[in-house]
Amino acid sequence: MPLSDDQKAEIAAQRESSATTRRPTVAALEEVLYNALPVLDHGFVRVVDYMGDDAAIVQAARVSYGKGTRRVSEDAGLINYLMRHRHTTPFEMCEIKYHVKLPIFVARQWIRHRTANVNEYSARYSILDNEFYLPKPEHLGVQSAANRQGRGEALTGAEAERVMALLREDSERTYAHYEDMLNEDAAGNPKDPGRQGLARELARMNLTLNFYTQWYWKIDLHNLLHFLSLRADPHAQYEIRAYADVMLDTVRRWVPVAYDAFCQYRLGGFHLSEKGLAAVKRMLAGEAVEQKDSGLSPREWREMMAALGREG
Amino acid sequence: MPLSDDQKAEIAAQRESSATTRRPTVAALEEVLYNALPVLDHGFVRVVDYMGDDAAIVQAARVSYGKGTRRVSEDAGLINYLMRHRHTTPFEMCEIKYHVKLPIFVARQWIRHRTANVNEYSARYSILDNEFYLPKPEHLGVQSAANRQGRGEALTGAEAERVMALLREDSERTYAHYEDMLNEDAAGNPKDPGRQGLARELARMNLTLNFYTQWYWKIDLHNLLHFLSLRADPHAQYEIRAYADVMLDTVRRWVPVAYDAFCQYRLGGFHLSEKGLAAVKRMLAGEAVEQKDSGLSPREWREMMAALGREG
Amino acid sequence: MPLSDDQKAEIAAQRESSATTRRPTVAALEEVLYNALPVLDHGFVRVVDYMGDDAAIVQAARVSYGKGTRRVSEDAGLINYLMRHRHTTPFEMCEIKYHVKLPIFVARQWIRHRTANVNEYSARYSILDNEFYLPKPEHLGVQSAANRQGRGEALTGAEAERVMALLREDSERTYAHYEDMLNEDAAGNPKDPGRQGLARELARMNLTLNFYTQWYWKIDLHNLLHFLSLRADPHAQYEIRAYADVMLDTVRRWVPVAYDAFCQYRLGGFHLSEKGLAAVKRMLAGEAVEQKDSGLSPREWREMMAALGREG
Amino acid sequence: MPLSDDQKAEIAAQRESSATTRRPTVAALEEVLYNALPVLDHGFVRVVDYMGDDAAIVQAARVSYGKGTRRVSEDAGLINYLMRHRHTTPFEMCEIKYHVKLPIFVARQWIRHRTANVNEYSARYSILDNEFYLPKPEHLGVQSAANRQGRGEALTGAEAERVMALLREDSERTYAHYEDMLNEDAAGNPKDPGRQGLARELARMNLTLNFYTQWYWKIDLHNLLHFLSLRADPHAQYEIRAYADVMLDTVRRWVPVAYDAFCQYRLGGFHLSEKGLAAVKRMLAGEAVEQKDSGLSPREWREMMAALGREG
Repeated sequence: MPLSDDQKAEIAAQRESSATTRRPTVAALEEVLYNALPVLDHGFVRVVDYMGDDAAIVQAARVSYGKGTRRVSEDAGLINYLMRHRHTTPFEMCEIKYHVKLPIFVARQWIRHRTANVNEYSARYSILDNEFYLPKPEHLGVQSAANRQGRGEALTGAEAERVMALLREDSERTYAHYEDMLNEDAAGNPKDPGRQGLARELARMNLTLNFYTQWYWKIDLHNLLHFLSLRADPHAQYEIRAYADVMLDTVRRWVPVAYDAFCQYRLGGFHLSEKGLAAVKRMLAGEAVEQKDSGLSPREWREMMAALGREG
Repeated sequence: MPLSDDQKAEIAAQRESSATTRRPTVAALEEVLYNALPVLDHGFVRVVDYMGDDAAIVQAARVSYGKGTRRVSEDAGLINYLMRHRHTTPFEMCEIKYHVKLPIFVARQWIRHRTANVNEYSARYSILDNEFYLPKPEHLGVQSAANRQGRGEALTGAEAERVMALLREDSERTYAHYEDMLNEDAAGNPKDPGRQGLARELARMNLTLNFYTQWYWKIDLHNLLHFLSLRADPHAQYEIRAYADVMLDTVRRWVPVAYDAFCQYRLGGFHLSEKGLAAVKRMLAGEAVEQKDSGLSPREWREMMAALGREG
Repeated sequence: MPLSDDQKAEIAAQRESSATTRRPTVAALEEVLYNALPVLDHGFVRVVDYMGDDAAIVQAARVSYGKGTRRVSEDAGLINYLMRHRHTTPFEMCEIKYHVKLPIFVARQWIRHRTANVNEYSARYSILDNEFYLPKPEHLGVQSAANRQGRGEALTGAEAERVMALLREDSERTYAHYEDMLNEDAAGNPKDPGRQGLARELARMNLTLNFYTQWYWKIDLHNLLHFLSLRADPHAQYEIRAYADVMLDTVRRWVPVAYDAFCQYRLGGFHLSEKGLAAVKRMLAGEAVEQKDSGLSPREWREMMAALGREG
Repeated sequence: MPLSDDQKAEIAAQRESSATTRRPTVAALEEVLYNALPVLDHGFVRVVDYMGDDAAIVQAARVSYGKGTRRVSEDAGLINYLMRHRHTTPFEMCEIKYHVKLPIFVARQWIRHRTANVNEYSARYSILDNEFYLPKPEHLGVQSAANRQGRGEALTGAEAERVMALLREDSERTYAHYEDMLNEDAAGNPKDPGRQGLARELARMNLTLNFYTQWYWKIDLHNLLHFLSLRADPHAQYEIRAYADVMLDTVRRWVPVAYDAFCQYRLGGFHLSEKGLAAVKRMLAGEAVEQKDSGLSPREWREMMAALGREG
């Protein structure tokens, strides 16, 4: 686990404190509040705060004075309707805040989503820890030939060992040189009093992209679901998907009705294009349709037939 | 007060419910949670949820594992530093949600701030209530001659009465015609069964801009303070300023340290331009500086001298 | 047409000016540049500037040094791929700026899209013209019984005439009172020197929501397409759809390849939910599927069957 | 210079193409359009497109039908007024698009500004070039003792040489291993046919943060000026400031009037806090004010006195 004893104690203290509130609370999410949910070899996701629940979505959609909720089935029906018709603003009325520890190359993909609030640990002010990501051997995929941005089967045997050794050695060496250039001990004094230390903002440039950083990341439910629909997708890089999967589970705890609607209308569905729809209509009418007379590209045809559970 | 008995009962029920939470809570804000704080003749501001407190700002700035706060004076010093140097992201880590009832022309100014989440009561789906804003006589300002977007002294006597009568009569008449065109009773059936009703989405166009609408409005603390710095400003129209003033007070309850920093570094300060700064330097050196050799426009000179408490 | 002679002359002068540029230009869009394309009875849409073209999408997707485009078919294939897989950022690299004149109630729906830049004509500074929207009789729909936010058949005969008369009379009367309260002539002097004028920022509240306002509105192509997918949709209110339709045509002129991809993958397609997809698979396998064993709600079932061209 | 012959040829071809347009054009900016303006050792900034000019700001503020501009002095007065009173929306009506090549650690600071559109070169799809940033010896600052995020005097002599050697060697080694793990030649075939290549999305994690990446970056003028006010500031890290300085010069070419207003009211001014303003008033009244009775912190006092050109 990626936590020091001090950090564990701080988290435990946070979990022990409690107060009475008039705000909506979600017991299933409070259960894991502040806990470091592990991801990859040294990373984690921690829910550190949240606002709203399933009822808050309904309440906002109805602009109500009180709770605004009715029978459970009616509320679920409304949430399904909102999700299906992409009425997104009521979902923006719930907000969640995470503390995330993640490799820098994952952070760089993640930050492209601009609709969140972010405070990242600053390597201008502070010194990064000696923690870097090493993939498990089964994740050392080769470059996919079919898909320029994918990875295929994992490397095995000597090849895998060689890659692991290179990654590990370069991480260790660049960190050792980082420390060397900084020339600072824990108290901020020169380790080697005979020489000066390079500014932190410069020394950090010697670290490799698999080093861990961390941030506070706060987002509303609508934008979180959009992020997860892209990052929990099989096309996403494994390393960021590992985070998305853990976060999906926190969403399930937090807003179970919205989570079900999201699975039903986003994650689990399939979008037919205009030509795809025309092809399906012909198939339903009993015609034998082939890719070349469908107007679809081979790749799009293949994806549609896979979704429909048919051989291309 | 703008509330029906049903609405009062709903709010009371919300205020009575309570739960235990591990999240940060702010007692001074919980005191007024859900209450309809009155604004203008029929409007209100209600805080319906919040996330974070002063400590959450510090915690995010430090990307800490636990509370991340230290001595009170140290935390306040950090918050002052962040405010002064416009390090805005830690303030984005607090979020607040309001339910607001406001005249449509105020809503149209307000919505120009695009950094909030909004769910407005829909006049496509629902029928608006017969509630419209009438200024108090002391707010019936005449068009300012000096400032194209300002108002001057209030109208008095017969002139004021005449304006009030026009506003009231037109509001009442347009609402009566709105109802007439809708031709719906409370249950959604035709009042006059002999004719059909115009669609709600069309009938609403007959209402004047002083009718009240309402919305849920959710925003982070940084963007809220930016909104308030513009809308609690003396240059803002009185009617929106009335809302901003009530909201400022909820901020004071919620995050008192950030509120003080905001007053100190935003509301209460003065921004010197490059030429203004040069003029102040010369004054401090004992020179007598006049507008025409300052490089400032007469208006800018006047504003600066007023801020410095000197005659122009 | 909604333009004065002065306005026509200003537009003509803009259209006559021309310059040489190294930037990408689109002849088909330049053809209509600055022209007021009429919408509703007094409104218009004018394209006043644009940045980028289809090639700019490709160029950004490839982060290229030069034009970055290849064969036409290859570029179209890439744009289709980006649209289909919701790789939205390359579409954000094109930008367009409109000048729009529109009724206030339409402006209020429109402004809910927060991803654009807006400068609206200010009724605090300036006096609004005496122009208001009156629907054509065929658009005077009754309230839909089936759909709370829709409109059904149009009113006819005496009922239609009655509604038209109410709308017209209230608009004329509220404007007359607006002018009366302002008490300003064209030069800004009191019409009636015996009394003062009410501040513009107050007098405007007496106008009804069908009065026209105008704004400059600037947006990137991705967000514009999202706006159009919602506002050119049959569920959108007719009045805003009328604007969306005219704007769609400017998109077709501007970026014809992206426009085709948008029609193919957004406007013309259909999104199957997880249960919908399961039902379609069963139908394709020859099963007779009914709503009640599909897991879909009656409404969702109806919509899907309509899209598939089958009886429910 | 950071360009290959192919890249130079592509840029030259773009510069040679030209067309006639009705849009506003800015000759001074067209002069440098597409040129790679060098920054740091291998980086550059290229303006690749723009929309609007100084007149477009005025036009939007006036919501005009034609150019909307009047006398030069009147337009400049309006732009100054808008800048001074933070009426920011008219500045949002101008847009600019850059192609930037920059070290990854600079990109990570830069991307924290979320109000731009970005397309970054993808190291999932493509292979990064062997280009990394090495500071000039005079920029190898030591860690500042006074300011945790600053750098002080430069390292000299053997210490500087040692740091340079470490940075260079680690960059070269990590790139060699990156290539080795990829095992791809220019055509995408294995260099060493006896083994497979690691997926690009994984191999990249071995690169250090001083490697160059590149992106297309598009932003409106208001948000660009905000970015530049933070990043052309002396508190910003030297490496990002180097980019900001070059971009400032492109703004001066593009919108010279807005640029002057920006220098006058943002870059060159000073913001007095409430207590700072009180202290200045007392000084102007002839009082001797000292830090300890000013209510300002020592650091704030020092900064204010420096701005006022007085000894603390």
